[in-house]
Amino acid sequence: MDRKYNFYAGPAILPYEVMKKVQEELLDYNGIGLSVMEISHRSKDFINILEAAEEKIRSLMKIPDNYAVMFIQGGATLQFDMIPMNFLKGGKADYVNTGSWAKKAIKEAKLFGNVNIAGTSEDRNFNYIPDIALSADAAYVHVTSNETIGGIQFHTFPETGDIPLIVDMSSDIFSRKLDITKFGAIYAGAQKNMGPAGVTVVIMRNDLVDKGPEDIASMLSYRTYRENKSSFNTPPCFAIYIVKLVMEWLETQGGLEAIEARNNEKAKILYEAIDNLSLYKGAAEVKDRSKMNVTFRIYPEELEAKFLKEAGEQGMIGLKGHRSVGGCRASIYNAMPLAGVKTLVNFMEKFEKENK
Amino acid sequence: MDRKYNFYAGPAILPYEVMKKVQEELLDYNGIGLSVMEISHRSKDFINILEAAEEKIRSLMKIPDNYAVMFIQGGATLQFDMIPMNFLKGGKADYVNTGSWAKKAIKEAKLFGNVNIAGTSEDRNFNYIPDIALSADAAYVHVTSNETIGGIQFHTFPETGDIPLIVDMSSDIFSRKLDITKFGAIYAGAQKNMGPAGVTVVIMRNDLVDKGPEDIASMLSYRTYRENKSSFNTPPCFAIYIVKLVMEWLETQGGLEAIEARNNEKAKILYEAIDNLSLYKGAAEVKDRSKMNVTFRIYPEELEAKFLKEAGEQGMIGLKGHRSVGGCRASIYNAMPLAGVKTLVNFMEKFEKENK
Repeated sequence: MDRKYNFYAGPAILPYEVMKKVQEELLDYNGIGLSVMEISHRSKDFINILEAAEEKIRSLMKIPDNYAVMFIQGGATLQFDMIPMNFLKGGKADYVNTGSWAKKAIKEAKLFGNVNIAGTSEDRNFNYIPDIALSADAAYVHVTSNETIGGIQFHTFPETGDIPLIVDMSSDIFSRKLDITKFGAIYAGAQKNMGPAGVTVVIMRNDLVDKGPEDIASMLSYRTYRENKSSFNTPPCFAIYIVKLVMEWLETQGGLEAIEARNNEKAKILYEAIDNLSLYKGAAEVKDRSKMNVTFRIYPEELEAKFLKEAGEQGMIGLKGHRSVGGCRASIYNAMPLAGVKTLVNFMEKFEKENK
Repeated sequence: MDRKYNFYAGPAILPYEVMKKVQEELLDYNGIGLSVMEISHRSKDFINILEAAEEKIRSLMKIPDNYAVMFIQGGATLQFDMIPMNFLKGGKADYVNTGSWAKKAIKEAKLFGNVNIAGTSEDRNFNYIPDIALSADAAYVHVTSNETIGGIQFHTFPETGDIPLIVDMSSDIFSRKLDITKFGAIYAGAQKNMGPAGVTVVIMRNDLVDKGPEDIASMLSYRTYRENKSSFNTPPCFAIYIVKLVMEWLETQGGLEAIEARNNEKAKILYEAIDNLSLYKGAAEVKDRSKMNVTFRIYPEELEAKFLKEAGEQGMIGLKGHRSVGGCRASIYNAMPLAGVKTLVNFMEKFEKENK
């Protein structure tokens, strides 16, 4: 079997050890003679999986007891709706416009109340994190911690005082240590750093969960998920099972401190290659460069297609930049091994020699 | 490996051939060197899967071109909200109250408009399908085709004329042939007859899709799913892949005509055992008996615990009735082989001899 290095922005590569275990257990989980897909979500075996997934998320991220950890369907995109449905309610919220994902969140929020753009980097096609001017009376402040298309990332988060900071962390959750108490809520689709598409993790301070309206659809109220331990209806059991395995893998890697160090190293090697070689140019402002999605261009641009084709032939796929910005992009989430980044850098050096 | 017969109401057993294929392809789908879980939802390989899943659903169910087939997250339970959000809008809808699932749909619909109970079997704890008296001015008529707890099923559907008939078919979709043109919409969570929990199939006439309000959250509008081929955001790729494999399996079984004949045979064998043996008594009215969830009681009731324990020891699990009604329940969805039902019947006969 010839495994590839997948540099796609998502769904992303998963740890090989996790995939091997999923394969081994696929027909017979824990000796029960059935797959995790084939058992009741009310069975002891599945409840153990769900509880372990939550517990491991809590311990890896050091989440205090006054926060709920919930598994929800619909991706971060449904959170773009659920957040304002629960907390905006005709009032005002501050949104920071850092790119494609922030724009989608803003568009949905406008259906439910007033959106104040507290900062935007649209003037330079979202290649930097803008300065932020917060309202005094916002219901919450919303930011996107990492933009996969522009390749920019908040390396520090804004101080929002008593106003809850709500963060879409879909593309960099579990990539670094964080002080959870600074956040009102964090949400993330699984398909970059946690597991397969189909489950979203929402970490939310209990007083915010309590603030949701009473007359809202059950499936759109955070209370429903907290009070039913994410099992008001059948949760996406198999996706949650894989999240649990990825959390166990993170533990074996040394937790968030160790994975952060490795992510820093991977990003450093790749950005150094971009800066030191002459064929490549980083797309994002240096101070705001993402450690998850490394965006760059190749000059002359005619070489890009050749670069992508030859990389693909050598087992490196998904390096094409998003159609809205062009160029190249290497997504190097937690599960991308250092060897994958080194293979890419070696190829970039070789390609430069051959094409300069 | 010792595979079990899982009689749980859901998530249910999947065809063994499908599970074997999932296992084989888990690390390397179609020779691409990655799992289906690890590739972009915009990649050609995944788009092919999504299109094949839709095409196979269309051909198996003979769905006309003026119906959309959509893959949505959130289970049937989110449909309990989306249907009235899109179509009730403060008006009135007819709901038939046949049990636990219908009640949940009714509870959510009341948040969005007026619900007329067009029929109910609550007087006898939902052990039959009630007569129905439709309103002349309902926005739609909603029924639950099969109730997993009471073990009752619509064997014919009400004639609703120009008023759209919307059916929650979560627990018996693909179990029999249907004339799709009789329905405005059909929706079903995958975890009984289609695949793993985490994807819901919605089949809806296009004029209904068009009727949804313009100012609704994107993820709660059917237009969003139809117009973006279920990929407005990342769909639950792996669950959709398994749905495709289950549809292929259904084709190899001879399609819906053949599976219906097999389901009829499985139900006949099991209900005959219940009727012919003296220890067991069917819970549902004979004319409305479900062919998917066979509910029965054991007399004297003290024997039930012993029955369940001994069945479990012989590899038959999930036979305990739902806690709200007690007794026993054998869920015999499409993937339950005839051999599983025969094994259960043999055990019932032996248990009767030993305990009479």
